[in-house]
Order: sequence, then structure tokens, then C-alpha cells
Amino acid sequence: MKIVNLSQKFDLFQEHWSPRIVGELNDSYVKLAKLQGEFVWHQHENEDELFFVVKGRLQIKLRDRDLVIKEGEFVIIPRGVEHCPVAAEEVWVMLLEPKSTRNTGDQQNERTVEARWI
Amino acid sequence: MKIVNLSQKFDLFQEHWSPRIVGELNDSYVKLAKLQGEFVWHQHENEDELFFVVKGRLQIKLRDRDLVIKEGEFVIIPRGVEHCPVAAEEVWVMLLEPKSTRNTGDQQNERTVEARWI
Repeated sequence: MKIVNLSQKFDLFQEHWSPRIVGELNDSYVKLAKLQGEFVWHQHENEDELFFVVKGRLQIKLRDRDLVIKEGEFVIIPRGVEHCPVAAEEVWVMLLEPKSTRNTGDQQNERTVEARWI
Repeated sequence: MKIVNLSQKFDLFQEHWSPRIVGELNDSYVKLAKLQGEFVWHQHENEDELFFVVKGRLQIKLRDRDLVIKEGEFVIIPRGVEHCPVAAEEVWVMLLEPKSTRNTGDQQNERTVEARWI
């Protein structure tokens, strides 16, 4: 039962698109990630995913529109919805998703990484 | 798929110890609550509960020690752990917990409320 300070955790890594696990509850992980540039289109077949923006401005492209999520805001991308995150400037996010979630969802490619604890 | 702005949602209610639902994912709810004063001792038998402090300083009494969670920090109280939240000054928190979670856990009393959407 540790208290997790988001700023302190974000100081521990610099890589983009490489989520770190900072908590687990009810078969889900809380993750932190730094994002910059454009990711890849993907979906998560059975998992809803929450993006909470801690710093910066996150664009999430959907097939029919774009979302822009600012600091202090979150959005939940439901399972089965194709999306592509884009960060024109660096963005820090807190993610909440089931433990089974792969960062690239239904895609496996050079952007696929295994999240690890920090 | 709505973008949720925490500040705007917190402006919509003033009651203490009365969580409001602002999102759902994977059989869990995201809730916001304003806390002031001392709550009641309780536990959640099958549910882990995340407290993220948006504003203020939250004390969570455990049977063997106290936690103090500050702005930008979170803690996860595992299922089965008795706890009693205390807010000397008003605290704003974001909670994450299974939909089945009752605010007073294994206790049903005058502090028990049904969370509703805002």
C-alpha cells in the first residue's frame, strides 16, 4: 500500500510510447506514459481504456473525428473502437486498462512493448 | 465517448461524502467526491479502491498506521483492508472502483449513499 506521486514517477523515465506500471487493482493496471509524435492505429477488442492527461494536450484520432484532451481531462475509449493517439508536443498521461491490454492492441509491430513496473 | 473535465464536474456539486459517477470502463466506475471531516471505518470485501487526490490532503486511517495523500498522488486500498478517510480541510478525490462498490463497504448506515451520474 504505497502512495504514488505522479511527478516523481514521471521523473524516472524519458522514453516515449513506453508505458510504466505504477499500480494494480481489480485486474487492471494504472500506467504512466510519455507520448510524442504519432502512434499507430489500433483497437482493443475486449478492453476499455482510460486516458487521463497530466501534462500537455493529447489528440486521439478516431475514424470519424478527432478528440483533443487537455490537462485535467480524461476520455474512455471503449473496446472495439479504432484510435490513434497523436502528441504534437510531449504529453504525459495516466492510463487505466486491464492487465491483458497490449499497447498496440490488435496490432503487433515495432511499437509493441511490454509495460514494466517502476 | 465524452471528454470529462474534472474541474467542470467538481463545480456541479457541493455535498461531501456523496460520490458522483463520471465514467465507466471494464465494470468499474470513475467517481468524483468532495470530502470533509471524518468518514466511517469500513472495508470492501472484494473490491480494490483507488483514491487520487485532485485537491487538498487526504488522510486515510488504517488499523496500524495513517496514510497522507497529497495533490497529484494516489493510493490503492486493497480489498479487505479496513480504512477510514479523514479530511481536515476539504479534499477533492477521483475514485476508481468496481460498479458493485458501496461507499461504506461492509457497513450500511446513515452515511451510505448510492452514487449517481453527473
